[in-house]
Amino acid sequence: MDSDYGVPRELSEVQKKRALYQPELPPCLQGTTVRVEYGGAAIAADPAGAHVISHAFPRTYGQPLAHFLRKTAVVPEAKVISEHPAVRVGIVFCGRQSPGGHNVVWGLYEAIKAHNQNSKLIGFLGGSDGLLAQKTLEITDEVLASYKNQGGYDMLGRTKDQIRTTEQVNGAMASCQALKLDALVIIGGVTSNTDAAQLAETFAEAKCATKVVGVPVTLNGDLKSQFVETTVGFDTICKVNSQLISNVCTDALSAEKYYYFIRLMGRKASHVALECTLQSHPNMVILGEEVAASKLTIFDITKQICDAVQARAEKDKNHGVILIPEGLVESIPELYALLQEIHGLHGKGVSVENISSQLSPWASALFEFLPPFIRKQLLLCPESDDSAQLSQIETEKLLAQLVETEMNRRLKEGTYKGKKFNAICHFFGYQARGALPSKFDCDYAYVLGHVCYHIIAAGLNGYMATVTNLKSPVNKWRCGAAPISSMMTVKRWSRGPSATQIGKPAVHMASVDLKGKAYEQLRLNSSSFLLEDIYRNPGPLQFEGPGADSKPISLCVEDQDYMGRIKKLQEYLEQVKTIVKPGCSQDVLRAALSAMSSVTDTLNIMVSSSTGQTPL
Amino acid sequence: MDSDYGVPRELSEVQKKRALYQPELPPCLQGTTVRVEYGGAAIAADPAGAHVISHAFPRTYGQPLAHFLRKTAVVPEAKVISEHPAVRVGIVFCGRQSPGGHNVVWGLYEAIKAHNQNSKLIGFLGGSDGLLAQKTLEITDEVLASYKNQGGYDMLGRTKDQIRTTEQVNGAMASCQALKLDALVIIGGVTSNTDAAQLAETFAEAKCATKVVGVPVTLNGDLKSQFVETTVGFDTICKVNSQLISNVCTDALSAEKYYYFIRLMGRKASHVALECTLQSHPNMVILGEEVAASKLTIFDITKQICDAVQARAEKDKNHGVILIPEGLVESIPELYALLQEIHGLHGKGVSVENISSQLSPWASALFEFLPPFIRKQLLLCPESDDSAQLSQIETEKLLAQLVETEMNRRLKEGTYKGKKFNAICHFFGYQARGALPSKFDCDYAYVLGHVCYHIIAAGLNGYMATVTNLKSPVNKWRCGAAPISSMMTVKRWSRGPSATQIGKPAVHMASVDLKGKAYEQLRLNSSSFLLEDIYRNPGPLQFEGPGADSKPISLCVEDQDYMGRIKKLQEYLEQVKTIVKPGCSQDVLRAALSAMSSVTDTLNIMVSSSTGQTPL
Repeated sequence: MDSDYGVPRELSEVQKKRALYQPELPPCLQGTTVRVEYGGAAIAADPAGAHVISHAFPRTYGQPLAHFLRKTAVVPEAKVISEHPAVRVGIVFCGRQSPGGHNVVWGLYEAIKAHNQNSKLIGFLGGSDGLLAQKTLEITDEVLASYKNQGGYDMLGRTKDQIRTTEQVNGAMASCQALKLDALVIIGGVTSNTDAAQLAETFAEAKCATKVVGVPVTLNGDLKSQFVETTVGFDTICKVNSQLISNVCTDALSAEKYYYFIRLMGRKASHVALECTLQSHPNMVILGEEVAASKLTIFDITKQICDAVQARAEKDKNHGVILIPEGLVESIPELYALLQEIHGLHGKGVSVENISSQLSPWASALFEFLPPFIRKQLLLCPESDDSAQLSQIETEKLLAQLVETEMNRRLKEGTYKGKKFNAICHFFGYQARGALPSKFDCDYAYVLGHVCYHIIAAGLNGYMATVTNLKSPVNKWRCGAAPISSMMTVKRWSRGPSATQIGKPAVHMASVDLKGKAYEQLRLNSSSFLLEDIYRNPGPLQFEGPGADSKPISLCVEDQDYMGRIKKLQEYLEQVKTIVKPGCSQDVLRAALSAMSSVTDTLNIMVSSSTGQTPL
Repeated sequence: MDSDYGVPRELSEVQKKRALYQPELPPCLQGTTVRVEYGGAAIAADPAGAHVISHAFPRTYGQPLAHFLRKTAVVPEAKVISEHPAVRVGIVFCGRQSPGGHNVVWGLYEAIKAHNQNSKLIGFLGGSDGLLAQKTLEITDEVLASYKNQGGYDMLGRTKDQIRTTEQVNGAMASCQALKLDALVIIGGVTSNTDAAQLAETFAEAKCATKVVGVPVTLNGDLKSQFVETTVGFDTICKVNSQLISNVCTDALSAEKYYYFIRLMGRKASHVALECTLQSHPNMVILGEEVAASKLTIFDITKQICDAVQARAEKDKNHGVILIPEGLVESIPELYALLQEIHGLHGKGVSVENISSQLSPWASALFEFLPPFIRKQLLLCPESDDSAQLSQIETEKLLAQLVETEMNRRLKEGTYKGKKFNAICHFFGYQARGALPSKFDCDYAYVLGHVCYHIIAAGLNGYMATVTNLKSPVNKWRCGAAPISSMMTVKRWSRGPSATQIGKPAVHMASVDLKGKAYEQLRLNSSSFLLEDIYRNPGPLQFEGPGADSKPISLCVEDQDYMGRIKKLQEYLEQVKTIVKPGCSQDVLRAALSAMSSVTDTLNIMVSSSTGQTPL
């Protein structure tokens, strides 16, 4: 099986040209000397969970943020890393392929070799299985040649996205020790980065010398946090999908007789669906986050779509395009509850044939109401993270069928006077996942690969590589690292009036922010999207000419740059210290005290009101 | 409904840049003066049908081929068309949208206006329905602005692809007369061009002044003939699909656990599937033409796929990608016969619920064997051309299910030792149909639009616009026109030992030529495609840089240029006439006679052996 990995292969014209593309490095990573500046200790965003997290990660929680600066940067406290002994680094693809993953390997390889030609980068073959089985391939220029700027994970392969059981963790440690790795770089999403943090902690505890570094690579875009503006692959996936969605919109408008229901891969969060909507302006999108916030049932959603179809028919429009995130099914309260019951029975070892007979009465009633195809899909075993097999559940077909039934009823009743409702269903996922990565994803992944090296050179453990200020050109990008544990949260479920169950700390999937600017753009335009057919075709992913340098709209409209601001704040505090040195005038000191007192009061009140705690 | 047609709309960056793209004209169409040279009377390729066709089209069969030449071309008999009175031309989209259709309108508009500013181009709104209802929109620069080089048919819309019943034909004639049209241009595929020929004949018979012109625009690529090298839209569709197929290949290779079954839109012929295979090198393709030629049953095909899966598993490959043309179901003998029975019962007015009980015993046995989802799809009413609703029949799921059952059986039996077989099914059609057209399709369609004008200026009726030598650069393209009736064939079915039923003459869909060079390429590579995973990613459709100027492989490998050769032959004959004028030497005359006698003998024998007739 392994013999095919990393084998040079024949490339098409476009692939060849892409293979020659050389991403730029931001100024801070240029040259062979980089400075690291450490910020304050990073804390978890949710202070309520901080205690649990610090307890679970005693060795890796509360480490400082790191900023990588150019050698000439005038920051007195930054540490210049000038020694670059040879290192041995392992790298593994965890979880689903996301366009750009290969460039992380390339960037890391370039950085490693630029600092010491004797360093080695060792790829694990076949993902986490290869890590445990010590199946490796040394990365060389020759191996990389036909994988630079190319999609997929086929240079090294991947298997399950899980290194979590004691057996798996010990296996990983044994591999790292056997191969004498100074560091292990894990490329993956939410689950894999949680695993990376756990490995880092366990390795530190066991005095294993291997440092663990995570890299945010997932098409879902759901690893967003104050430290991570977007993930590698998200841009490409949204571009490829948006192209197809707008092709379908054009098709709908040309034929004027179909409603297209398009389900989009992206796991539980609706980031992909939101971005694709902003790019291609379909008539409707049902975001899981909206459904969850408003506690809409499947019948509410059906009615919403039917009312939309009816409103459009009154304007003589008998066609349309509706987007559905694959995670929607888990956001609909009653379907989620049904899935939970089913998964519970799976957990108890009940066989698939017997599950339906053991459901609670209400769940059973809902189950029996659903069409047979969807029943079969709901009964599938849950994924390793306990979520449903979202890619296999055809929610778009379920909704299309429910809408058709209702529209036929309305037609018969005379309340709907349009043409007979005709739906065509699609699932866009696999056909985008292996795409050639966009320029943005190529650049972002390549720079992240470089950042990984500097994290390793600085001897950091349990960190994720970060690049921020991404909406600006590459020469303005900021590079850094944040402890993965500071991105974690702790889930709480109330079990009765006084008991609360606390989950394990983990990096949890980030939902679409219903108060964010990207969602606001959707909300402001949704009625014209619905009725006016202002379809927009971003066109196929371009590598030259207009569109080649575009970035996700949801990235560009948000005002993020958290890492930049944290650094700016640090600069202000330093300035105050410099100005108000012992020996300064009473007036200056008084002014400083009064100003700082009011600042701290304000901040204290803000923090306490958001967490419900008594101010300090 | 009509108010939205031709409305200026907001374009994306890529769309805007495309809207500014100006296709080139071949030298013969540059300037305002064009010469027409007429060749010999065009005959149908199948001499056996010629009589039937000439009888059905007494006024439009046997007209000469026309070649458009530049003004300065040294062809003594070519006629310079120098008068360009104002004309009124109608244009209508018939049948399914195909990328590039808008450019035919643009090209025709440019040519019309360049020759007489008072001429008018009138678009029919909503396709053939609009033609019958006289719903029109005058094409202007403003209307065209945001539709140049754009996909879809949404500038004018389309409905059914049929103008065939006496009522429809008379309605079309009434519209043409009411609007005082000098010509009607029909943009469409096999069916629509047959209709165009019929309209031309009927109009001529009724002394209606409107000339009818057809344009070969269909994504299926099945309007190929000696006169038509490829159709508008085929290149784009194959590029968009090949991109997605290769993404899926990369995905398969990265995850190594799925078999992807991908069904491709393209009607009964397998041109799209063949071209996509040559572009992206999936593991397998089941061409309908191969299945029909070898009379493979559904069980033969299943076994073929299962054996392939097993052979791959023996090389530790548990993934793969298999392409299936949507027309496959009609190429499988027993399924076709079943469909014919079902359609027969439909024709007799038997309701869907009762059809299964009225099938013949063998058809009923097959029907009951098939999974319920496919039974439901087979029962759908046939299309207007009597073929099954191919886009709705999920042959890929049927095959995936049959293969899974068989692989599970082999696994249990111990003959198959690979991983459990997992299939994921796709249908790629609608998401490609509305795509931005490739540069080639933009150019080809634009030039065809210009050619339409010259056909009209030459006063020709019942012709199709042709552009040949397409694999060469635009400045080498040859422009002409061929009578549609010469592309027709007559189908014969034997009914018992002596009786033969003869069909109506029509332009029939062209199958993939199993003796052609494109198929040969596939055959030579099929075993390495199957076992070696030499997947190739042509990348997303590019408008700049490498790949932007690529053309279909199946177009480039074939040695076509029929129109060029017909012209060349004409030149040779003229030369003989010029050399051997009365007064030439006896020797020359004798040599000419002897040479020509042997040429005619050879040709006579070739023609008679291919048709089974006695040589002349």
